Amino acid sequence: MSEAAAATRWVYDFADGSREMRDLLGGKGANVAEMTRILGAERVPAGFTITTEACVAYMQGDKAFPDGLDGQVAEALGRLEAAAGKRLGDPEDPLLVSVRSGARESMPGMLDTVLNLGLNDASVAGLAARTGNERFAWDSYRRFVQMYGNVVLGIEGERFEDAIQAIKQDRGVTEDTDLDRAALEELTRTFQGFYDFPSDPQDQLRGAIQAVFDSWMGRRAVEYRRINRIPEDWGTAVNVQQMVFGNKGDTSGSGVAFSRDEVTGEPEPSGDFLPNAQGEDVVSGVRTPRDIRELKDWQPEVHAQLFEILRTLEAHYGDMQDTEFTVEEGRLYMLQTRNAKRPAQAAVRFAVDAVGEGLLDKGQAIATIEAEKLDALLHPTFDPDVTYEVLARGVAASPGAAKGAIVFTAEDAVAAAADDRAVVLVRPFTEAEDVAGFHAAQGVLTSEGGKASHAALVARGMGVPAVTGAGTLEIDVRAGEVRLDGAVVLREGDLIAIDGTTGTVTTDDVVLIDPVMSDEFRTVLAWCDELRRLDVRTNADTPEDAVKAREFGAQGIGLCRTEHMFFGEDRHDKMVRVILADGDEERRSALAELLPLQQGDFEGIFAAMDGLPVTIRLLDPPLHEFLPKLHDVEAQAERARIERSDDLDHLEHTLDRVRSLQEVNPMLGTRGVRLGILYPAIYEMQLEGIFRALLAARAAGTDVHVEVMVPLVDYERELELLRGLIERVGAAHDLVAGRDYLIGTMIELPRACLLADWIAHEADFFSFGTNDLTQTALGFSRDDIEGRILARYIEMKVFDRSPFETLDAPGVGQLVRMGAWLGRKTKAGLKLGVCGEHGGDPDSIDFFHHSGIDYVSCSPYRVPVARVAAAQAAVRDDGGDGAGW
Amino acid sequence: MSEAAAATRWVYDFADGSREMRDLLGGKGANVAEMTRILGAERVPAGFTITTEACVAYMQGDKAFPDGLDGQVAEALGRLEAAAGKRLGDPEDPLLVSVRSGARESMPGMLDTVLNLGLNDASVAGLAARTGNERFAWDSYRRFVQMYGNVVLGIEGERFEDAIQAIKQDRGVTEDTDLDRAALEELTRTFQGFYDFPSDPQDQLRGAIQAVFDSWMGRRAVEYRRINRIPEDWGTAVNVQQMVFGNKGDTSGSGVAFSRDEVTGEPEPSGDFLPNAQGEDVVSGVRTPRDIRELKDWQPEVHAQLFEILRTLEAHYGDMQDTEFTVEEGRLYMLQTRNAKRPAQAAVRFAVDAVGEGLLDKGQAIATIEAEKLDALLHPTFDPDVTYEVLARGVAASPGAAKGAIVFTAEDAVAAAADDRAVVLVRPFTEAEDVAGFHAAQGVLTSEGGKASHAALVARGMGVPAVTGAGTLEIDVRAGEVRLDGAVVLREGDLIAIDGTTGTVTTDDVVLIDPVMSDEFRTVLAWCDELRRLDVRTNADTPEDAVKAREFGAQGIGLCRTEHMFFGEDRHDKMVRVILADGDEERRSALAELLPLQQGDFEGIFAAMDGLPVTIRLLDPPLHEFLPKLHDVEAQAERARIERSDDLDHLEHTLDRVRSLQEVNPMLGTRGVRLGILYPAIYEMQLEGIFRALLAARAAGTDVHVEVMVPLVDYERELELLRGLIERVGAAHDLVAGRDYLIGTMIELPRACLLADWIAHEADFFSFGTNDLTQTALGFSRDDIEGRILARYIEMKVFDRSPFETLDAPGVGQLVRMGAWLGRKTKAGLKLGVCGEHGGDPDSIDFFHHSGIDYVSCSPYRVPVARVAAAQAAVRDDGGDGAGW
Repeated sequence: MSEAAAATRWVYDFADGSREMRDLLGGKGANVAEMTRILGAERVPAGFTITTEACVAYMQGDKAFPDGLDGQVAEALGRLEAAAGKRLGDPEDPLLVSVRSGARESMPGMLDTVLNLGLNDASVAGLAARTGNERFAWDSYRRFVQMYGNVVLGIEGERFEDAIQAIKQDRGVTEDTDLDRAALEELTRTFQGFYDFPSDPQDQLRGAIQAVFDSWMGRRAVEYRRINRIPEDWGTAVNVQQMVFGNKGDTSGSGVAFSRDEVTGEPEPSGDFLPNAQGEDVVSGVRTPRDIRELKDWQPEVHAQLFEILRTLEAHYGDMQDTEFTVEEGRLYMLQTRNAKRPAQAAVRFAVDAVGEGLLDKGQAIATIEAEKLDALLHPTFDPDVTYEVLARGVAASPGAAKGAIVFTAEDAVAAAADDRAVVLVRPFTEAEDVAGFHAAQGVLTSEGGKASHAALVARGMGVPAVTGAGTLEIDVRAGEVRLDGAVVLREGDLIAIDGTTGTVTTDDVVLIDPVMSDEFRTVLAWCDELRRLDVRTNADTPEDAVKAREFGAQGIGLCRTEHMFFGEDRHDKMVRVILADGDEERRSALAELLPLQQGDFEGIFAAMDGLPVTIRLLDPPLHEFLPKLHDVEAQAERARIERSDDLDHLEHTLDRVRSLQEVNPMLGTRGVRLGILYPAIYEMQLEGIFRALLAARAAGTDVHVEVMVPLVDYERELELLRGLIERVGAAHDLVAGRDYLIGTMIELPRACLLADWIAHEADFFSFGTNDLTQTALGFSRDDIEGRILARYIEMKVFDRSPFETLDAPGVGQLVRMGAWLGRKTKAGLKLGVCGEHGGDPDSIDFFHHSGIDYVSCSPYRVPVARVAAAQAAVRDDGGDGAGW
Repeated sequence: MSEAAAATRWVYDFADGSREMRDLLGGKGANVAEMTRILGAERVPAGFTITTEACVAYMQGDKAFPDGLDGQVAEALGRLEAAAGKRLGDPEDPLLVSVRSGARESMPGMLDTVLNLGLNDASVAGLAARTGNERFAWDSYRRFVQMYGNVVLGIEGERFEDAIQAIKQDRGVTEDTDLDRAALEELTRTFQGFYDFPSDPQDQLRGAIQAVFDSWMGRRAVEYRRINRIPEDWGTAVNVQQMVFGNKGDTSGSGVAFSRDEVTGEPEPSGDFLPNAQGEDVVSGVRTPRDIRELKDWQPEVHAQLFEILRTLEAHYGDMQDTEFTVEEGRLYMLQTRNAKRPAQAAVRFAVDAVGEGLLDKGQAIATIEAEKLDALLHPTFDPDVTYEVLARGVAASPGAAKGAIVFTAEDAVAAAADDRAVVLVRPFTEAEDVAGFHAAQGVLTSEGGKASHAALVARGMGVPAVTGAGTLEIDVRAGEVRLDGAVVLREGDLIAIDGTTGTVTTDDVVLIDPVMSDEFRTVLAWCDELRRLDVRTNADTPEDAVKAREFGAQGIGLCRTEHMFFGEDRHDKMVRVILADGDEERRSALAELLPLQQGDFEGIFAAMDGLPVTIRLLDPPLHEFLPKLHDVEAQAERARIERSDDLDHLEHTLDRVRSLQEVNPMLGTRGVRLGILYPAIYEMQLEGIFRALLAARAAGTDVHVEVMVPLVDYERELELLRGLIERVGAAHDLVAGRDYLIGTMIELPRACLLADWIAHEADFFSFGTNDLTQTALGFSRDDIEGRILARYIEMKVFDRSPFETLDAPGVGQLVRMGAWLGRKTKAGLKLGVCGEHGGDPDSIDFFHHSGIDYVSCSPYRVPVARVAAAQAAVRDDGGDGAGW
């Protein structure tokens, strides 16, 4: 190790730190230091923090303490001993310390803690003598030996618990607290027999510090970081703090306290405490804790002090606080404070109250909300007060709860909807042709696929609850049954309930609680609308979705996908006829039948979006998506051949067509504008429908702002050709581009981003299709990647989250920015939007805010989340605290 | 039209032009002006040129002459009349003119020409009187009326020919020249009855100019431009020139002359002439022309003058010339000169001779060669002296000719090769599993697919001749027959011959001529090696290909695709076992059997490339490519179920595996480095094979430079993981990266280009995989696009050439440059290569030369082309005449 490293400062006394030093001292260390500063040293037990950098150096140094660390710990311990007037391991009056982890972000329960460190056969006597409480001393020693063995040396907790159980049986008692001093000593000896207990407190301390460092790379911590996207190279700090004792008798106790109700957000402190207990007892649930309000009866002084401190801390931090405290013989110590994690309703309530109380301004208040969690407020949930038996767990693919009778096909779902029966669509996986079933079902359950599967994407887009990838279930559509471990557990028509917020599946008849948009939530959203600079539109394909999205505050439709309109019962047959048509005339006649239906779709949407812009994307997917599967047609034709059926001719024709439309890589095939150039008749029909609907809506007094969007453009010339087609159809109705409607394009291919300055010559607006842009820029087929690659890549730390959930800023984001800049270089006022899943993801929204985008578009149920996220981006931006894109 | 437009100069006298004004005056106009300057006005009939800009203005102005054009033409005509001392339409001594098109690039036969303009009933008499030759005058008049009707008014040529035929029968003569004055007058009157003949020479002139303008948008011209990639907005110039007459009797004549032999390039003028004829007679083939050397006997003076002029022109232009001349009563006039189009052997011969003669320096000489055409010198051809019956025409997919017995499967091809039988593989289309058949067959014929189909790409890569997309043939593999219009024309074993240079298919037993690399070609290539700055490597998967490429001058292997090694007869079964293996042990045992085979492959390649670098790409394609098709396995399993076969278990296992490896978009799926991260055992085996081969080759005294290449990298971390794996396997053999071998990556995804600075941290070299980069940047699946989209897009002018043939410079090229720049930003000396089809395309090579690339890699047979193209890029670069990338 170099001299420079040796000179690094690895250790800070609490008195030297502050909350600004979070990266170096971890959340706990920084907050304890801050509390020491604002509450005074007498309220916070003294101690010191070993920095996160020491942990990183330890990991990089192959688990060796970095040079200088041992010395600096010894010095800090010396200062602590001097201040406490006690020495670690002193047989007369020993100092005891806790050793706790503390990462930059809270990782509750994921890292290790050792309490009561410093006890051994000598010092336990000193402790007993000084406290005059032998039982307390031995209880502390027993706890320490147990914790050290478990946490530092990894001995199974069960072995200790079994031993406790045995001695309780032996003594004929049921509670730990009924064990007397002798029993506790015997237990301590038993535990010491489990391993080579280090008597020297210096060895104990070194071992505990190392255990905390090691716990950073433990299985639980790695998993937690993965889920919560915490970088591995942050490391954890280690806090060494003088012990205070809540288990010193009836005037002692421990507790946790929130500055406000942690479930509802109501402006009254909440929490639990236990007299004569250490903190771990409160959390472990071994004894039933008491409500914090009862402190008043127990020790009114402590109650008043604590409530005053909670107010002080909240005001100081500007956020709801989650604290730990200990009362030692009537004296209150604050051990920890941090911003409280809280459910969405509490977060919203706090934000509103904090503004009302003058604690925060609107921007600050909104910044305290986790936007992602708000989704939960917009969907039904399982009644949280009822327990139920879990049949299976899958991926929480689309939030909300649903229950109904099992159907296995989209057709059956549609039929059930017609009869007003509530059903859940249950399939191994879903495809485009199943989409009608999503509308008709209460929820969707699949055994395959994850958050980016077709089922998940469509369900989230429609706001239909979904659980995907419930892999223990074997869903046999042909047999009409669901098997678990080979045994049939469910058949068609059986009741099933799913919770897409948690990924739970049950067969119990769970009570569902409907969401209510609270006044507080409306208030918060209104503030967000004042603050944000990004508009929020919605992706909606039906008038119902449009109405719903408008209720949620959508400022227009950013993406109306016309292909979903062709999967409806009354349309699909006609679309198949269009594709199978022999010659132009037959095709046009089939298209003519679709025309009034398309027109009707658009009229409904225009009415719902009166006064707001509606972006309609012309047909995008390859035509074979509308035809039956090759495999099925082959089988049908084979059967017809054997049976010499009259259908054979028709089937062979279909087979030819299906074969000729097959593609090796449909994602990169004949879709989008390529369809428009190859088969202009389809686009012409769609345009005719749009323009007729526009005129009809106008005649009905509706204010229509239609934006025709051409998908998958690579070349300026493609858009020039399409502009010609669109303007020609419009001109037949005396409609003029730029005056009566706009023409724009999706920017969803890397080439389009790179040459957006050329394409902008033909475009009135751009909408970045970041889903397909991610697929092409990364060469990742969403359909194929997530099954095999995603998990492995997260495990191997290639990325920490699917690029389909949160925009890959360095790569795909770079293309978006390039496209935005080049587009505006050609047309200064070019309107820029984003449609696709990323438009509803808070982190991605922050990126778009900083990229000159005018609006994001997301599914109706994500609109409120997007409004909040957009406001937060603006607040961070104005506060100069941007993510630094 | 604005005053500015009115002030535009639309007309230039020949005396005012020069060859530098080609864009404005067209090739013909610029060259005639140049000739006037260097040969003197007495050698070149006077005239003027209407600019290409006038044509463009005419097209943009909806076929109206731009303001000022009429006036400027009248003025120029006045000057011409003054110089000639004759007036257009003068009944005493009329001026006659020709009106010819002349685009920026020569478009032979595609645009229109009118001769003898200015004749009418009055002036024909003057012409007769002045020349004393009534027959000549009426022959000229007859020709003019015929040409004007045909060219300007679009009357079918056959009507005129039929009338000539009729009058010849009537007069009992067989030759046109035997028709007397009266007959010619009668013919003229007959022709004038076909349409409303404009007597006024001013009307004639205006009509002819307009006809030339219109011919620019004619069907033939549009088609020619499409094929030759000439932009529509160039327009054509119009040349109006005083007529001189080769048909004035026995001391007159017309001819075409090349400054050197136009077929062989030998340094002797060649060409044809006809006494007493106009130029059109020489070209039309109505009379058999005489060799130009016979001029010496006919008129020695003219012979000497012409040969001297040819030398002067060639020296002046620095290139072989293709001229037209007319002799009028013993006086030689030069009508036109241009650089001669010539076949590859003549181009090479000229280049070498021109340097020898001191006419050009090496760089100038090399610049005269069309690199693309050189391919023809490296493959067998049909004997050009034999005629044969064409069975079908397809796409000239891979150059060279081949013949052999028809086989329909790769297996049969392999079996035939084992028996030394020559076969041609005939299939509707080909797939990866057919590749073994390419090696075994003489050539490949398919009924589907174009230049970028699998068959075409693999065939070109292997240098196997191929004709694809011979759509009139119905190839029925099951029936073992080939049908044409429903009738069986060929069966397995029948003889077939294909010419992949022309796309021709025949059943005749054509004689094939083997290619010989001439001394001149070797000389040219040696010069290219002196001049070029891009290295040229080859894509080679076998020792045979490596040896062949080295003969062609490859400086190493830029891409050795290891997947092809697993399709060989002795490997495929083992690879299938690897993929189907249950558990790690079984997989490793199957891999262990592949290891010595891989090692052997690499040893052979290292030996062939002794002293040169060899870039080995680890396995790239998705694993399902090695397995049977889902459809086939399903059918087999169904059969086995019915027959209760013992194979059922195995088949169902295979079926499961095939199903689980299916991908919706395999191009964007589990391939490349993703395989390496998911299934490291396969890469480990390959690396083991590489390193063992390296050691074995070293022991045998071979100088090995191996570069291990990781495909499809998106993230720096992917390459970091793979570097770890590679170095670990290497270390087991005491081999060290950077010393014993290099580690690099293919840059073939847009993200990799955008973040090449990050990826470069882990890479010793980059190789741009422009095929896949084109697919992802453009969102174009090569397999799917060309069948449907390519032709339509060329027709609709979205692009003029497939982006898979010539790099899409603005989009894909931008990514390549970004990747190159960012990579070198991190590592100044980072070696940069290009592999993929574009590495052998001259235009793309020019782009790479200007993009800081170190080497291109192409198929063995493209290596000489690439050497020449690279030298030409360097010459243009040094001459400051770069393509302006």
